[in-house]
Amino acid sequence: MIVVMKENVNQDRQNQLIDWLKGMGLGVHVSAGEFQTVLGLIGDTSKVDMDLIASLDIVESVKRVTETFKCCNRKFHPEDSIIKVGDVKVGGGNFAMIAGPCSVETEDQIVAVAKAVKASGANLLRGGAFKPRTSPYDFQGLKATGLELLKIARKETGLPIVSEIMNIADLPLFEDIDVLQIGARNMQNFDLLREVGHTNKPILLKRGLANTLKELLMSAEYIMASGNEQVILCERGIRTYSDYTRNTLDLSAVPMLHELSHLPVIVDPSHATGIARIVPSMALAATAAGADGLIIEVHNDPIHALCDGAQSLKPDEFDALAGKVRKLREVL
Amino acid sequence: MIVVMKENVNQDRQNQLIDWLKGMGLGVHVSAGEFQTVLGLIGDTSKVDMDLIASLDIVESVKRVTETFKCCNRKFHPEDSIIKVGDVKVGGGNFAMIAGPCSVETEDQIVAVAKAVKASGANLLRGGAFKPRTSPYDFQGLKATGLELLKIARKETGLPIVSEIMNIADLPLFEDIDVLQIGARNMQNFDLLREVGHTNKPILLKRGLANTLKELLMSAEYIMASGNEQVILCERGIRTYSDYTRNTLDLSAVPMLHELSHLPVIVDPSHATGIARIVPSMALAATAAGADGLIIEVHNDPIHALCDGAQSLKPDEFDALAGKVRKLREVL
Amino acid sequence: MIVVMKENVNQDRQNQLIDWLKGMGLGVHVSAGEFQTVLGLIGDTSKVDMDLIASLDIVESVKRVTETFKCCNRKFHPEDSIIKVGDVKVGGGNFAMIAGPCSVETEDQIVAVAKAVKASGANLLRGGAFKPRTSPYDFQGLKATGLELLKIARKETGLPIVSEIMNIADLPLFEDIDVLQIGARNMQNFDLLREVGHTNKPILLKRGLANTLKELLMSAEYIMASGNEQVILCERGIRTYSDYTRNTLDLSAVPMLHELSHLPVIVDPSHATGIARIVPSMALAATAAGADGLIIEVHNDPIHALCDGAQSLKPDEFDALAGKVRKLREVL
Amino acid sequence: MIVVMKENVNQDRQNQLIDWLKGMGLGVHVSAGEFQTVLGLIGDTSKVDMDLIASLDIVESVKRVTETFKCCNRKFHPEDSIIKVGDVKVGGGNFAMIAGPCSVETEDQIVAVAKAVKASGANLLRGGAFKPRTSPYDFQGLKATGLELLKIARKETGLPIVSEIMNIADLPLFEDIDVLQIGARNMQNFDLLREVGHTNKPILLKRGLANTLKELLMSAEYIMASGNEQVILCERGIRTYSDYTRNTLDLSAVPMLHELSHLPVIVDPSHATGIARIVPSMALAATAAGADGLIIEVHNDPIHALCDGAQSLKPDEFDALAGKVRKLREVL
Repeated sequence: MIVVMKENVNQDRQNQLIDWLKGMGLGVHVSAGEFQTVLGLIGDTSKVDMDLIASLDIVESVKRVTETFKCCNRKFHPEDSIIKVGDVKVGGGNFAMIAGPCSVETEDQIVAVAKAVKASGANLLRGGAFKPRTSPYDFQGLKATGLELLKIARKETGLPIVSEIMNIADLPLFEDIDVLQIGARNMQNFDLLREVGHTNKPILLKRGLANTLKELLMSAEYIMASGNEQVILCERGIRTYSDYTRNTLDLSAVPMLHELSHLPVIVDPSHATGIARIVPSMALAATAAGADGLIIEVHNDPIHALCDGAQSLKPDEFDALAGKVRKLREVL
Repeated sequence: MIVVMKENVNQDRQNQLIDWLKGMGLGVHVSAGEFQTVLGLIGDTSKVDMDLIASLDIVESVKRVTETFKCCNRKFHPEDSIIKVGDVKVGGGNFAMIAGPCSVETEDQIVAVAKAVKASGANLLRGGAFKPRTSPYDFQGLKATGLELLKIARKETGLPIVSEIMNIADLPLFEDIDVLQIGARNMQNFDLLREVGHTNKPILLKRGLANTLKELLMSAEYIMASGNEQVILCERGIRTYSDYTRNTLDLSAVPMLHELSHLPVIVDPSHATGIARIVPSMALAATAAGADGLIIEVHNDPIHALCDGAQSLKPDEFDALAGKVRKLREVL
Repeated sequence: MIVVMKENVNQDRQNQLIDWLKGMGLGVHVSAGEFQTVLGLIGDTSKVDMDLIASLDIVESVKRVTETFKCCNRKFHPEDSIIKVGDVKVGGGNFAMIAGPCSVETEDQIVAVAKAVKASGANLLRGGAFKPRTSPYDFQGLKATGLELLKIARKETGLPIVSEIMNIADLPLFEDIDVLQIGARNMQNFDLLREVGHTNKPILLKRGLANTLKELLMSAEYIMASGNEQVILCERGIRTYSDYTRNTLDLSAVPMLHELSHLPVIVDPSHATGIARIVPSMALAATAAGADGLIIEVHNDPIHALCDGAQSLKPDEFDALAGKVRKLREVL
Repeated sequence: MIVVMKENVNQDRQNQLIDWLKGMGLGVHVSAGEFQTVLGLIGDTSKVDMDLIASLDIVESVKRVTETFKCCNRKFHPEDSIIKVGDVKVGGGNFAMIAGPCSVETEDQIVAVAKAVKASGANLLRGGAFKPRTSPYDFQGLKATGLELLKIARKETGLPIVSEIMNIADLPLFEDIDVLQIGARNMQNFDLLREVGHTNKPILLKRGLANTLKELLMSAEYIMASGNEQVILCERGIRTYSDYTRNTLDLSAVPMLHELSHLPVIVDPSHATGIARIVPSMALAATAAGADGLIIEVHNDPIHALCDGAQSLKPDEFDALAGKVRKLREVL
C-alpha cells in the first residue's frame, strides 16, 4: 500500500502517522522527494483502513498496490538510486568500472592487477576469495587469506573492493570489505539475502542462472525489506541452449530493470560469455544499452589463472576496452 | 583415481594402504563388493605414483578417472545404494512414497494429513516448516514450531519425517528430523551441502531450477565427499518456456541418473507441474520410468492451503493414486 | 463464437442457419453430439449479431469465445476424437504402436523391420523417405524411392504407413501414403499445414523444438480449419539445457493436451532422448501418462543406420518393450 | 576438403582441376583472394585421393575439414562478405538500416512510412506481405497486393525492398523484390532454403526461435551450397523463460557469428523484445556489439497496426534513434 503525503506537511504529524502504522506491525518505507513524500507500507496491509488514512488532512491519496515488489519499485521512488562506495558513486549517471581477477591468488598478482586496472580507469576492484565451484574437487578460493590480500591491494591503490560472500557465518570476515557480492547461485538463498540486508554495506546482487527479472527484483526486495537499500543489480547471462557461449547475456534486462526499478544495473560480460575474445563487444553493447557499470575479469596471466582464465582479459586488453567505453559514454 | 584391490586380500594390509593414501592428504572412499574392494581416491591425485601402487601385490589395477563425480558414480559402486530411514528403505527396489502438505499449518492439519496418507500407503511424511518463498512478503513457514508439529504427527503415525533446511544455523533444530531436504534453490548452496554432509542423516537433494544432471551429481558429491553417503536424488521439474505447467518434469532424468549413479532417484510431480489435476498422470509416469519413490503434496483443504494449494491432492485423490502406483509396480 | 443448438432441431432449419453464417464469410464447424449440436464459427465474428442468433427458436445459447483454438478444443467437442487409419484406430482408448526405421534404406531393410515390428504388435509402420537434416551435406533420404519401398513393406505386412512430408510440391508422391507426418521443424510452416488440411488423410503433427502447447494446438487448428480434422498430436521432446539427452521429453504435455483438446496424443521417445538405452523407460512412462500411442525407431542394424542409429532399438528390444507396454495398459 | 592453390597459378590449369573435381560429383566453391585461391570441396569427399591432389604442382596444400559449415566459414574466406542490394552494400563496414512496418496495410501507409524512414537515413525498406501467424484466424497479410504496394513505395523513395517469403510456390511473385527474407519459423524449412539458393537475390536469413548458431550457419549453408552466396544473417531473439520481453535478444551472436563466418550479421530488436520502449536501447547495443545493420519496425500509427503494433516505433522515435546510431558508429 502506498500513501502519498501532501506537499510540505508538518514533519511531526507525518512521523506520528508512521509510528502508528509501524505499531500495526507494518514496515514503512519513506521516500522523500523534493516536494512530496511517499510512504510504502510493507507487510500484511489487509487490515489497514484505507479510507481512514485517506481522510487524514496530511494525506493526498492512498493506493493499494498489486506490484509485488515495493522497496525497489520505480513507481514509489521515481529518481534513480545512487549507491555510494567510499567516494565512488554508482547509478544516476555515475558509472562503475569494476575489474579484477576471478580469484585472488597471490599478493603480487592482486596488487599488480589492481594497479593496472586503476591506471586504465577502473574505480572498483573485484576479486574472489570464496569461490562457488560446481565440483567439490575444484579450487575453492583462498578464503580469509584472499580477503586480506584484497585489502593490501586496496591500500596500494585506493580502490574499494568487491568480493563474494557465500555463507552467513563468514560475515565477520567481510567487516572491512566495501561491497558484498551475492553470486548467481545464491540469488535465492533467502536467509543470506536477509542477513546482508542487516548490514550497512552496498550489495552487488547477481541474477541467478535461470531467474526472471521479477525474481531478481524480489531478491533485491528481501535485502531492502531487511533495511539495506544499497543494492546494485547485475545481469550476468542466463542459461539457454547456446552452443558457443557459456550463457546468454540478456541485455534487454538493462532497460527493463531501469523501467521497473530505481536501482543501478551493471553487467558482467565475462561470466555471461566465458570467452575473453568477445567480452569487449559485449561490454560496449552493455554500455550502449544504458548499463550503470561493468564488472570485468582481468588477469595478468590468464593462461595460468586458477579459475576461469578463458574469460579474463589481459591488462592491455582491458585498457583498450576501458578507453572505448569512455568514448562511447561521451557520445550517449 | 580408482584402485581395484585383488580378491580376498588381507584386511590389515589393505588398511595400511588406505592409511598411507590418507597420509598423502587424499580422501579414500572404500566400496566393498562381495568379492572385490574398490578404493576411490578423492583430492589432488596428481602426485600419486600410479605405477608404485599398481605394483603392490594386493592391487589388481589402478586407473586415473576422468569422471568428475566419484562418490556417487555407478562405475565405482555398481550396486544400487539403499538409503535407510528408520525401518524404511529407499532404492534398490524399495519404493519411497512420501506425502504431506507443502507447509505445516496446524497440529490438526498435519496429524490429519499424516494419518490419511499413512492409511493410503505412504511410508514417509513430508511437511515444510522453513519455506523458501520468492517474495519476502509471503508466508515463510512456521519454522521451529512447524518442526515440533511434524514430530507430533510422527508420534501419532510412526511415519519418519522429511523437511527442508535452508540455513546451516538451523541445523540444531533439525536434530530429531529424519530426512533433511535440500530445496531446488539451494542445490548449489555449497556450504550448506558440505554442512549436511557432516551429519549422519539421509539427505533428499532436489535438482535446481535449471541445473543439469551433472551439476546435480556434483552437488551430491559435495555431500558425499564430506562423509555422508546417504543421498536421495529428486527430479522436480526444470524451467522452460512451458505455457501451462509451472515447470517441465524431466523424467528422462530417472533412467539417466540410474545409469550414471548408484543413488536412489525419486520424483516430485507436484512442484514439477503445479497442477493437481495432472499430478496423478505424472506420478504414474515417474513410476513407470523406474523412479525409486514419489514425493507428493497432499492437503486436507487445498483451497485454503497457505502455499501451493493448487498443486495439492486431496486425501481421497492421493488414496486412489497410491493404489494405482502399487498396481503399476507389481506389473513392472 | 459458439452456437449451441436446441435438442433435436429440424435439420433443414439448422442447415439454413449454417448456410446463412457461411454466407457471411464465416467457417462453420459442426460438432454433432448424441443429443445436441454445437456450431463453432471461425473467422471474423465481430460483425455477427449475437442477439439475433440467440433469438432464433432453434438456438439454445450463443457464446463469444476467448479461446484461440476452436476446432481442436475439447470444450466444443467433449468426446475424444478417434482417428482411423485403415482398420487401425487411434485415440479414445485405441492405442497406436508405430514403429520402424528413421530412414528407409533398402527393400530388405524396410521389409525385415516391418515384419519384425508387426510380429511384436506394432499396428503402423514408420519410415523416413524425405529427411530434414541440419546439414545440406548429410543424407537427405531416398525420397520417392523410399516411399515406394514403404509401399512394398505395407504390401508384405498389411501395416499402414506413416512418412514425413516436407514440401507441398511433394504431395502427389504421398497420394498412396496412409498418414502424413509434419515434422518438428515444419510445425509452423503454415502453408504446408494449410495444404495438408486440404487432403483427406490423417496428419501426425509433431511439436516443434521449442513450441508451447498452445502453439502446437494452433498449428493443429490450421489443418482443421482447412477442413481436415484427422490430426494426431505428437510430443517429441523440447530443447533445453539438458546435458545427456538430446531433448527433454515433456510428458506433462500428454495430460495437458488431453484436457485442452479432443485430439489423440502420441509420444516419440526416440527423438526425445536420442539414446536407445533409455527409450524403453520413456515409452513406459508415456504409456502410464495416458498417451494414445508411441512412435519408436526400430532398426535391424542400428550401428550402420544411415541416420540416428544411436536412438534405434533392435527388433528384440522392441519386442520386449511392446510386451511391457501391453501389460502396463492392461493395468491402467 | 580444402584445396589451397599456389600463388598466381595458371587459370586454365586451375579450371581443369575444378572440372575434374566436379566430374567426381563434388561441388567446388572457389574463393579467389588477392594472391591465392582456395577451393572448398562440397559433398562426399571420402573417395577423393588427398595425396594425389596435394602432389599437383599448382596446389600448395590440401586439408580435410572437420568443420561442418564450409561455404559460410570464415576460415575459407577470411575477408568479410559484402552483400549488394542495388547501390546499398551490407557488411565489411557497410551498415544496413532497414526500417518499415510489420505488415503492409495500405498504399498511403507504406509510402508515408517509406518516405519517413528514408528521410531519417534508412537505406532499405521492410514490409510484410505474407505474414506467418501462430493462429489461422489472425490477419495473414495482403499477400500479392502487399508486394505491389511495396513496389510503389520503392518507386516513390528509391529504397530497395525486403519482404518475407514463406512458400516456394510464391517465388514468381517475388521476382521484382530486392531481398527475400526467410523468417524464424522457416529457418529449417530446408526445401525453401534450397529453392532461394537457386535465385540470384540477397537472402535475409533469420535465426529460428530456439536454434543454435551452428544451426543458423548450417541453414545459410543450404542456401550457399545451392549456389547463392548472398546471405545476410539476422539475430532476432531466442525463446527463454523471460518474463517481460517476448524473446531474449542474444547479442553475443554478433561477435560469435563474425568470428565463425564471413557473412554480414544484422539485428532485429523489434521482434526480439516486442516492446517499442526498449527497442532503441537494444538497437544501440547491437550497433556497439558490431552488427552490420538493424531491421526495425516503424509504423505511422502503431496503436492501430494490424500486427505487432506494440513493438513499432513512430517515425519521430525512429528518427531520433537513427541519429544516435550514426553518432555511435562514428565513435566505434
